[in-house]
Amino acid sequence: MPPEVRAMAARDKKAVMDILRNTAEFKPVEVDTAEELIDAYLDEGLLSGYYTYVGTVDGKVLGYICYGPTPLTVGTWDVYWIAVSPEAQRQGVGRALLAAAENDIKSQQGRLILIETSGKSNYVKAQNFYSSLDYEMISRIYDFYEPGDDKLTFLKRLG
Amino acid sequence: MPPEVRAMAARDKKAVMDILRNTAEFKPVEVDTAEELIDAYLDEGLLSGYYTYVGTVDGKVLGYICYGPTPLTVGTWDVYWIAVSPEAQRQGVGRALLAAAENDIKSQQGRLILIETSGKSNYVKAQNFYSSLDYEMISRIYDFYEPGDDKLTFLKRLG
Repeated sequence: MPPEVRAMAARDKKAVMDILRNTAEFKPVEVDTAEELIDAYLDEGLLSGYYTYVGTVDGKVLGYICYGPTPLTVGTWDVYWIAVSPEAQRQGVGRALLAAAENDIKSQQGRLILIETSGKSNYVKAQNFYSSLDYEMISRIYDFYEPGDDKLTFLKRLG
Repeated sequence: MPPEVRAMAARDKKAVMDILRNTAEFKPVEVDTAEELIDAYLDEGLLSGYYTYVGTVDGKVLGYICYGPTPLTVGTWDVYWIAVSPEAQRQGVGRALLAAAENDIKSQQGRLILIETSGKSNYVKAQNFYSSLDYEMISRIYDFYEPGDDKLTFLKRLG
């Protein structure tokens, strides 16, 4: 079965939190921040500014994405979080999630999508994933997150 | 008298809002956002994450700055807003505010300061101001704020 994408519901929270906690790259403080955005979405829906969707295969939640319009811009959007279960890599869940987000953003006159990620070697898989989907790395800020942990910004301009 | 810098108090709000509203570069939605951060600081103090100071000459509030630690980083700080009354330009108020912020950030083990600003021609004065204080422009995202309005990011590495 190909992955399906649907809006996150409260009943999905445990599965999504398990995915976040099982993703070795995420620090505990990052998981906490991701949870805050999830709770904002579950409480307020799109008014929270955090569009949150899950990717499923055969009904099982295997990944999620959180994105939203960048404040103080017209047509620029940020992808804040994307995660796929370590046991479900290479099944197209991440691609399905990001494609669904891009389609949604396009349908709302989005022009630009930005994704920030770490330059650390354990993020190479994520960096290659964005590059393979035509995101261009437009900046690297050395030592941004902490000494030795750079911030990379990936950008895609929508047709 | 040289400019002085002190923590913003509730009694300063009217003067600061007048400065923001009289700054032609700021759109109404930007002034609203700046006010939200001011209110957060006045309500919660530094716990808000928004360090807010005013610059005065002879006791008159002529400018303000709002900065804070960048979430999910160790030692990186953002300058969110800085504004000086249009009638008080070139008196050193902006320099005094930014110097005070830098000293405060250094004292808290800050390593990096980032300032985002518009690439539009009416922001050239701001761009030159940051460059003159050893901020380096490290990225330009074309059409970030809206078509024709790029985002510039200035960076300074501390000591």
